[in-house]
Amino acid sequence: MAEKKNDLRVSVLGLGAMGGVLAGALVDAGYATTVWNRSAGRADELVARGAKEAGSAAEAVTAADLVVVCLFGHSSVHEVLDPLRAELAGRTVVNVTTTKPSQSRELAAWATEAGVRYLDGGIMAVPSMIGKPGASILYSGSEGAFREHRELLELWAASTYYGEDAGLASLYDFALLSAMYVMFAGFMQGAAMLAPAGVSAREFAGMAAPWLTAMTGELEGFAKVIDGGDYTVPGQQSLEFSNLGMFLEAIAEEGVGDEPVAMVQRLIRRQVDAGKGDEGFARIFESVRRPAA
Amino acid sequence: MAEKKNDLRVSVLGLGAMGGVLAGALVDAGYATTVWNRSAGRADELVARGAKEAGSAAEAVTAADLVVVCLFGHSSVHEVLDPLRAELAGRTVVNVTTTKPSQSRELAAWATEAGVRYLDGGIMAVPSMIGKPGASILYSGSEGAFREHRELLELWAASTYYGEDAGLASLYDFALLSAMYVMFAGFMQGAAMLAPAGVSAREFAGMAAPWLTAMTGELEGFAKVIDGGDYTVPGQQSLEFSNLGMFLEAIAEEGVGDEPVAMVQRLIRRQVDAGKGDEGFARIFESVRRPAA
Repeated sequence: MAEKKNDLRVSVLGLGAMGGVLAGALVDAGYATTVWNRSAGRADELVARGAKEAGSAAEAVTAADLVVVCLFGHSSVHEVLDPLRAELAGRTVVNVTTTKPSQSRELAAWATEAGVRYLDGGIMAVPSMIGKPGASILYSGSEGAFREHRELLELWAASTYYGEDAGLASLYDFALLSAMYVMFAGFMQGAAMLAPAGVSAREFAGMAAPWLTAMTGELEGFAKVIDGGDYTVPGQQSLEFSNLGMFLEAIAEEGVGDEPVAMVQRLIRRQVDAGKGDEGFARIFESVRRPAA
Repeated sequence: MAEKKNDLRVSVLGLGAMGGVLAGALVDAGYATTVWNRSAGRADELVARGAKEAGSAAEAVTAADLVVVCLFGHSSVHEVLDPLRAELAGRTVVNVTTTKPSQSRELAAWATEAGVRYLDGGIMAVPSMIGKPGASILYSGSEGAFREHRELLELWAASTYYGEDAGLASLYDFALLSAMYVMFAGFMQGAAMLAPAGVSAREFAGMAAPWLTAMTGELEGFAKVIDGGDYTVPGQQSLEFSNLGMFLEAIAEEGVGDEPVAMVQRLIRRQVDAGKGDEGFARIFESVRRPAA
């Protein structure tokens, strides 16, 4: 067991794949760490490394100044924390459970009323990335809690604070993960188009990764146009030019599905049909921002 | 005018934005370059730089060993080349007009029958990128033509040859561009989610570009699983875990559209509904490869 880092006592509620790794990083860094999990048997390895296992969530909370919550969704957070309102008063909660922005805001309001300092975290990493370069956690809520515990938070991942609105971390998290999942679907579209020609997905991945990386360079230009609000500024590829009809024909000729590209084509068509075909491609932002009727 | 590079005589048919830039690169490199455009007035600047303007497509073809074709689609290529079958015989055509794979294959067959050596190109660049780092052109068709003219082709962009099937260049081109357009739509999804919270698209672009770049690192892992054909190999994020239902709820709560994420969720659900929810996320490839019923 490493030497005690300082006087801060930390508890981790929830020892799933992510919670276990977060707790392990604290133990290894020498923090006095108490762990608790609803079902038994998850703490053994952490105890062997120096953690203390609490017999109840209440015991874990009262043993700590800082309570890290990593459970399975919003309702499990309430199930565990609601009965401990009195014990939590005066303490700090860092909740890295994946919750919607509205749920994070609701928890922050609950915490404020209970006299609890609340910091919400959105983890941009899988458990194996924790403590390694490339991992990032987004925070919002109590700025005081973020500043005071920054050194601890940085043990897990690069930590960024986005503001007092506790929902912001989750909103950024969901926005980045959404963009990622959609990009993955785009990769699948390309791989599916090439499969009938006998091109392996690995060959395509070797081309797509540097290509998509290069094309992320276009995002700032789109963003400037979006923020400026004028989609007619010169130098842009027009929506008419971005017509994906030929792509959809080619996909059909290969006999594979077209859902990712068909989705983009719908976003384009909605603007073209509204008479905006000579404006810039960035205008598909308006198709996403305003839900289809 | 630069000194003549060698004895190769080149003609460029079609002086739109892309054709004009391609011709200009040849002129500047010292190739004896003849240019032609259906409508007048597009050649003046190129002539001032040293190109020769042909009065007809026939004149352009007979003035050249290598004929570069950059027109507005498959039908315009046939309109221009069909009457010149005799003149083209024995010459080499490099066609960089954007056409579907099936159209490239059809043109290659036409060329073979006419005694024309045919190389098809898919340009992965906008005109302003030609001749600069980052531009890439994919080729397929006549390997002899590619090898013989590689030095010239490299003036335009990094040049890669994919095989004798003339449709391959276009297929790779469409696959990469499809992945790009879908990634762009994913960016729009994230930007739209953040807009109601007052987050600018530029702020999001500053986060999304490095994030998506890092996440392209996942593509090779997906590809390995896809090529292996076994979506149950350990270490993958499962499809059940990738349920985007909470994302869709959060998007609805922000009052913005959800089409990009809803598309991915459909791909996921189709596999989960087929009982494959405990298999890896890469399995959405099967949802794209097999068109929905």
